[in-house]
Amino acid sequence: MTAPESPEHDQIPPSRRRFLLGGALAGTAGAAALGLGGALTASANNGGSGQPDHSGGGNQIGHAHGGGAKGPTFRHGSTVDHEANGFHPTDILRDFDYGRTSRTEDGRVLREWDVYASDEEIEVAPGVKYPAWTFNGRIPGPTLRCTEGDRLRVHFHNGSEHPHTMHFHGMHPAEMDGIPGLGAGTIEPGGSTVYEFDAEPFGVHLYHCHVGPLAEHMARGLYGTFIVDPKQGRPAADEQVMVMHGFNTTFDGEGNQLYAVNGIPFHYMHEPVRVKLGELVRIYLINTLEYDPINSFHVHGNFFDYYPTGTRLEPTEFTDTIIQGQGQRGICEMRFKYPGKYMFHAHKTEFAELGWMGFFEVTE
Amino acid sequence: MTAPESPEHDQIPPSRRRFLLGGALAGTAGAAALGLGGALTASANNGGSGQPDHSGGGNQIGHAHGGGAKGPTFRHGSTVDHEANGFHPTDILRDFDYGRTSRTEDGRVLREWDVYASDEEIEVAPGVKYPAWTFNGRIPGPTLRCTEGDRLRVHFHNGSEHPHTMHFHGMHPAEMDGIPGLGAGTIEPGGSTVYEFDAEPFGVHLYHCHVGPLAEHMARGLYGTFIVDPKQGRPAADEQVMVMHGFNTTFDGEGNQLYAVNGIPFHYMHEPVRVKLGELVRIYLINTLEYDPINSFHVHGNFFDYYPTGTRLEPTEFTDTIIQGQGQRGICEMRFKYPGKYMFHAHKTEFAELGWMGFFEVTE
Amino acid sequence: MTAPESPEHDQIPPSRRRFLLGGALAGTAGAAALGLGGALTASANNGGSGQPDHSGGGNQIGHAHGGGAKGPTFRHGSTVDHEANGFHPTDILRDFDYGRTSRTEDGRVLREWDVYASDEEIEVAPGVKYPAWTFNGRIPGPTLRCTEGDRLRVHFHNGSEHPHTMHFHGMHPAEMDGIPGLGAGTIEPGGSTVYEFDAEPFGVHLYHCHVGPLAEHMARGLYGTFIVDPKQGRPAADEQVMVMHGFNTTFDGEGNQLYAVNGIPFHYMHEPVRVKLGELVRIYLINTLEYDPINSFHVHGNFFDYYPTGTRLEPTEFTDTIIQGQGQRGICEMRFKYPGKYMFHAHKTEFAELGWMGFFEVTE
Repeated sequence: MTAPESPEHDQIPPSRRRFLLGGALAGTAGAAALGLGGALTASANNGGSGQPDHSGGGNQIGHAHGGGAKGPTFRHGSTVDHEANGFHPTDILRDFDYGRTSRTEDGRVLREWDVYASDEEIEVAPGVKYPAWTFNGRIPGPTLRCTEGDRLRVHFHNGSEHPHTMHFHGMHPAEMDGIPGLGAGTIEPGGSTVYEFDAEPFGVHLYHCHVGPLAEHMARGLYGTFIVDPKQGRPAADEQVMVMHGFNTTFDGEGNQLYAVNGIPFHYMHEPVRVKLGELVRIYLINTLEYDPINSFHVHGNFFDYYPTGTRLEPTEFTDTIIQGQGQRGICEMRFKYPGKYMFHAHKTEFAELGWMGFFEVTE
Repeated sequence: MTAPESPEHDQIPPSRRRFLLGGALAGTAGAAALGLGGALTASANNGGSGQPDHSGGGNQIGHAHGGGAKGPTFRHGSTVDHEANGFHPTDILRDFDYGRTSRTEDGRVLREWDVYASDEEIEVAPGVKYPAWTFNGRIPGPTLRCTEGDRLRVHFHNGSEHPHTMHFHGMHPAEMDGIPGLGAGTIEPGGSTVYEFDAEPFGVHLYHCHVGPLAEHMARGLYGTFIVDPKQGRPAADEQVMVMHGFNTTFDGEGNQLYAVNGIPFHYMHEPVRVKLGELVRIYLINTLEYDPINSFHVHGNFFDYYPTGTRLEPTEFTDTIIQGQGQRGICEMRFKYPGKYMFHAHKTEFAELGWMGFFEVTE
Repeated sequence: MTAPESPEHDQIPPSRRRFLLGGALAGTAGAAALGLGGALTASANNGGSGQPDHSGGGNQIGHAHGGGAKGPTFRHGSTVDHEANGFHPTDILRDFDYGRTSRTEDGRVLREWDVYASDEEIEVAPGVKYPAWTFNGRIPGPTLRCTEGDRLRVHFHNGSEHPHTMHFHGMHPAEMDGIPGLGAGTIEPGGSTVYEFDAEPFGVHLYHCHVGPLAEHMARGLYGTFIVDPKQGRPAADEQVMVMHGFNTTFDGEGNQLYAVNGIPFHYMHEPVRVKLGELVRIYLINTLEYDPINSFHVHGNFFDYYPTGTRLEPTEFTDTIIQGQGQRGICEMRFKYPGKYMFHAHKTEFAELGWMGFFEVTE
């Protein structure tokens, strides 16, 4: 499927985003208006579902890292307030942002996006508020999608109280690299810049903030997916994006207490990903997990073709389990042969038990 | 080589297994009869070979994880009591269980196995007893082998004091997935079920318990190899199975104190794997290691063709070192050009020094 | 490019190396003459650039492993004394040692090298002296390069106060494997041996000491690159070697406090790797990092073809980020399309912030 020139998806940010964008343009008022203040530790007021294992005393390291005997109690319990969060993982799954399209003078497709950084309090688990740093008010940020050869123009606005950038994985001139000291360099709170470059090579890529301390700027939530479709497109499929990440709710810089795809731990346990029997499912899989050396994706009862980085049209592997280091990504293509529910999760057990698990629900 | 319809290997469990199978069928008496009781910590009475580094004081973390200055003293010392353990790593290496064969109504090969879970005290290092949870009384469990297109029927009996399942990596209907809440779901102590599905796709796969806390159910020993041969077979070879795993003898859920292939640390240092000069050696390599992010396989003085997941007949890499995350597996094919002894081990030094090392002994 | 029969590079060791070689041959005097004495902990006198984050109090674990809020202050500050160290990372990058060449009786190319182990105090960061164990007085050791089918003869001399070997990744008889107990076995201080074998297979390999405790013998610096060129050569390119490694300056055997390519953390931040616009750049990339499970290589604004282990002439992947376990290696080939500065670093943020980062500087 090639990217349409006219966006299929909603380009109008919800009110909260619109507010923040206004805040971004006006300076640093956005975050302050949200009442984040100096909150630097995730609050963990349990939402009535019992005390999560991971919020225990200081010596419960095993619980913090391994999920304890039963794992977090919210795994099968109550869910977070998606509306208050301003985004919903079920929507993020198939939300491809093709930008506003026009033509360049030489007749190429020009795609433009507005992306703003903002500080957001996100309920990452029932009762657990996390002071995130986000692109467009969500974790992960918007999935920017285009076709190889397009001209891309990303208008970046920093509405956060902290300096940020957007660094794209992809080919581009050094001054568009989005790192401190090159081109526009670090974008201070209230500042803006434009990243502009050609879309190449085709594949599944990512973008993230590249300001130091890099670990924290990644871990706080500043990453998103960047898809460059091949000119000839790919076969029709039920296309999905899964960004694997975590939350270091203790801010100790040593590891993660929660793991997720697309923002909220255990979300696809509560709301399985619905797919059709026999239909081609194509997952753009990205690992942005900070602190841990690798992440992992495993599907139950099925196998997938794997295309590392998505830069070739032939898969390199047929398997049910792959690993990715941070910044690695790939495309998983599969068809379900039987109806029913199939788990997908990290085959790093600890990550699964702390949130990185979900279900596909296959129906005719 | 395709799997024969008549089993080549002993299908009669040894007396201890038979006893346990009886126990399984009779309820939960099996484990109790073994006197395991509530033993929850590995006992570490040194068997006369000096005090192992890893059993030192609480502040010897470096030793626990790195092997200390000299590594475990039993590396070159005495061995465990294989007879009491009820299995022998040298036998496990080439022990392929093709099951009982018959024909389905539509003329396909039907393979049936009895697999039972039981609680076993295993001497994992000289004097170190580990309260394991096992399939068929051994670590790893039996290597179940078939040919693509076969119908498979696994009669699972839970003789353990804990609830368990068998979850297969492979394609199958959701109700045969062996996870809590689907199909037969969790099998309680004394319970039984039957997992039945077609053998697909060809490759080297695995099975393991999928009851939570998943980390512990994996770490205690509940995993085994599942090989689906391609219909056309593979070239004749000296075929071997190596399951890479570990033992968290402190049960802290934070890491492993011992590492091994096929059950016993350092075993193939004491009893090298004997192979013939110039003969094709095919290793079905599986990583079930819990807690650590990756495992690794390295062979000395030689290179191997690597087939990730074994799902294709062409290798993707020619190397002497690969890594696998948990649940990953592949086939290594090599020929030794010169006689003599060649180490194989994790090229994660810590794992090697704590047990994951051995020798090939190449003779004409 | 095939290896020339006449060495292109300086085969004469600098005076310090010559001295040490003398020491090696004379016994254990070499190291003692350097005044290393019993120094077993890295001294951390700050060289006027402020106090590095990683040298803080005992409870600053987060800093030790994560770089703290700002990372080491020497990232942008003063540099080490390369002259005193006796080697320079900029030189190591393109320093291929083809050995002394002659002909065997059957007409093949015979390459011979002298390699000596020695104990060296290396300034690994401004003011941070590290008591290293080295091959030919440098970290990494010399890049030994040959063509498949050559006969190789490595004269190894141990001028260190500790026993060592040279273990090559590559195909060779067991008695040439360079491990304790086989062939010449462990080479005691003052001792020598000759490793001789055929060059196969083509690819990018490595060598390292294989004496226990293996972790420490690796971590102290005893590793280097071993390149076997294919007979037909590879396309002309700007060829570079990058060995990824670390320094456990606390000697706790638990992790690294500094990360680097080619010996000195942050070096290519101070002295970018200069490459030509549009020219093929070929990087022989090797991971010898001890303690950490994987290492990672990422390039900004560009993509590379990746050849795992370099044993095939076709790449398997086109990407900008790969991971390697210890002992893994591969070839990265890329061309820069735009001029300017492009970062390369581990996409394991912690490694990057503690030294494993640098710049390519692309000019016409």
